[in-house]
Amino acid sequence: MTIAVIYGGTRQNGNHELLTERAVQGIVTEEIYLRDHTILPIEDMRHSPEGFQDRSDDYNTIIDRILPHDILVFSTPIYWYSMSGTMKNFIDRWSQTLRDAKYPDFKNKMASKKAFVIAVGGDDPAMKGLPMIQQFKYIFDFMGIEFGGYILGEGNKPGDVLQDQEALFAASQLNLKLKD
Amino acid sequence: MTIAVIYGGTRQNGNHELLTERAVQGIVTEEIYLRDHTILPIEDMRHSPEGFQDRSDDYNTIIDRILPHDILVFSTPIYWYSMSGTMKNFIDRWSQTLRDAKYPDFKNKMASKKAFVIAVGGDDPAMKGLPMIQQFKYIFDFMGIEFGGYILGEGNKPGDVLQDQEALFAASQLNLKLKD
Amino acid sequence: MTIAVIYGGTRQNGNHELLTERAVQGIVTEEIYLRDHTILPIEDMRHSPEGFQDRSDDYNTIIDRILPHDILVFSTPIYWYSMSGTMKNFIDRWSQTLRDAKYPDFKNKMASKKAFVIAVGGDDPAMKGLPMIQQFKYIFDFMGIEFGGYILGEGNKPGDVLQDQEALFAASQLNLKLKD
Amino acid sequence: MTIAVIYGGTRQNGNHELLTERAVQGIVTEEIYLRDHTILPIEDMRHSPEGFQDRSDDYNTIIDRILPHDILVFSTPIYWYSMSGTMKNFIDRWSQTLRDAKYPDFKNKMASKKAFVIAVGGDDPAMKGLPMIQQFKYIFDFMGIEFGGYILGEGNKPGDVLQDQEALFAASQLNLKLKD
Repeated sequence: MTIAVIYGGTRQNGNHELLTERAVQGIVTEEIYLRDHTILPIEDMRHSPEGFQDRSDDYNTIIDRILPHDILVFSTPIYWYSMSGTMKNFIDRWSQTLRDAKYPDFKNKMASKKAFVIAVGGDDPAMKGLPMIQQFKYIFDFMGIEFGGYILGEGNKPGDVLQDQEALFAASQLNLKLKD
Repeated sequence: MTIAVIYGGTRQNGNHELLTERAVQGIVTEEIYLRDHTILPIEDMRHSPEGFQDRSDDYNTIIDRILPHDILVFSTPIYWYSMSGTMKNFIDRWSQTLRDAKYPDFKNKMASKKAFVIAVGGDDPAMKGLPMIQQFKYIFDFMGIEFGGYILGEGNKPGDVLQDQEALFAASQLNLKLKD
Repeated sequence: MTIAVIYGGTRQNGNHELLTERAVQGIVTEEIYLRDHTILPIEDMRHSPEGFQDRSDDYNTIIDRILPHDILVFSTPIYWYSMSGTMKNFIDRWSQTLRDAKYPDFKNKMASKKAFVIAVGGDDPAMKGLPMIQQFKYIFDFMGIEFGGYILGEGNKPGDVLQDQEALFAASQLNLKLKD
Repeated sequence: MTIAVIYGGTRQNGNHELLTERAVQGIVTEEIYLRDHTILPIEDMRHSPEGFQDRSDDYNTIIDRILPHDILVFSTPIYWYSMSGTMKNFIDRWSQTLRDAKYPDFKNKMASKKAFVIAVGGDDPAMKGLPMIQQFKYIFDFMGIEFGGYILGEGNKPGDVLQDQEALFAASQLNLKLKD
């Protein structure tokens, strides 16, 4: 059982990263920092005769890196009550991969995975982060991915989340589960 | 009372555009197609000593175009149960403008506006689009923007939404309201 | 195709009733006004050796009246952002019927039905009624009932909803569908 | 700072009660078991000339018991993805008290309180309990009550929740907060 962690934040050592590090402590993971890659927005060509075009960015290399793993952890700051635009652009592109002849098994492979969401925000995430969790649920349901669970941490200034005892406990519980 | 429409789609004549055209029929609007502009993801520099840096893209020109208007219409396809990544990146950048000395009145100016959301999706938008509406609510609340209402249309293939009688009626009702 | 309408309001001619009448105009329906019946709260005896006990109220007679129909319309005022306690008590009791030897086919029979929700509230129902809609979705999903759609009307004083043009249009559209 | 706990369950020692006991361990609380009282559904008389009528049940005695306290804990099983009908009937009646000349300060007094929600359910409460939390948020917002936080535990058979390590930890954290 191997794990890929997809980080959606735009600065180093963001609170969501600190919290996620607790969850994967002592585990070798494939770490993907989306900010280090160019991921263009999707161009919706579902209904064009020519279909989707290769966008010549780093997106496919990231897909190649996550597909071999059994577990995906989506780790994102909560920007404006949702995942970062960076992470959203990454997920938007799945629509293209679903129709990409180079990835005929994309949906099947994704459907065998289990996913977790770790998100940290500064404005009442336990409440205002809930619609985002619901969206991840719909996303995972569409792909057939099992939603293993989520952690919503609170933090604004760097390091804040390390004061969120419940989030830290949840991360330690997730760590036990991931080591199993 | 003047209106700016912010389109978040990535292809021309998307269903959300068709529906929005019904809502603004006969009204002069400032039309902003985000896909025609380069909007980089935010780099979260809130907690860096140097603060946010100018990102040298088209973002500020769009802010300059929406600020004069009383009403904002956010028109987006529903991608993966939320607004497009393109529109999300645009909104994420507001965090920068809120701290930008060039826009000292950004929040105040936004707080005097009224906003509508028009969104079209293919997978049960009346249900699975609801978390996105909730997020827009939180976004508008944070900025002090009045949420005037929303329309969730159904459509997948080009033109589909023109069969969604309830969405068309809601658009015609909104048209009356906007003309008032 | 026959229809039962379950009314959850506590006064006559409530706004939800007015709106529902538009939706079922010209159609013979089984009309059930929960307020005219005694429905005790569930006593959770799932884990007692003796199991659920007959509560000697009107609940079963209502089950008997809805089971023969293909379509169920749940019509409720929005009290405190949810269905009325009266309607909630009715649904809570389903847990008992699911284990009632007198209704061995309860779940199967319910699973063949299609349901609609019509609800009217005074405090921004288009937004603050959404969690209730999500709950109905979960309820119907659990039972295998198809969720045909919902109408959220606005109204506070008696008759108010007759000013809600979008709700009235949606009711007229539903009327066409039910007559089909 | 004193605490009233309002229990909405219908059997003794339900999982929500076990979890709540952890949260209030070592604290003297006013314990209200709604199942031990008769609380009739509201009769909506807001728009009748005669207004609301005294319903001659136990409802007012419960209001009298909660009003003196600074903190309210709403402890409920999750029945059908929401609070129990018993608890919903109790809250529905607030509409009456808001107009009751015997309680002229009801809203003001409630607005000075802080509330917590503790709920336990068997069908994915961390996800499917979220609309209920959102509803409590709307309820508390309407009354001006501060929403201090919530715990969603998982459990079906009696005692199950004692295996939910995250819920137990959250309860112990809440216990520290309540003792403060």
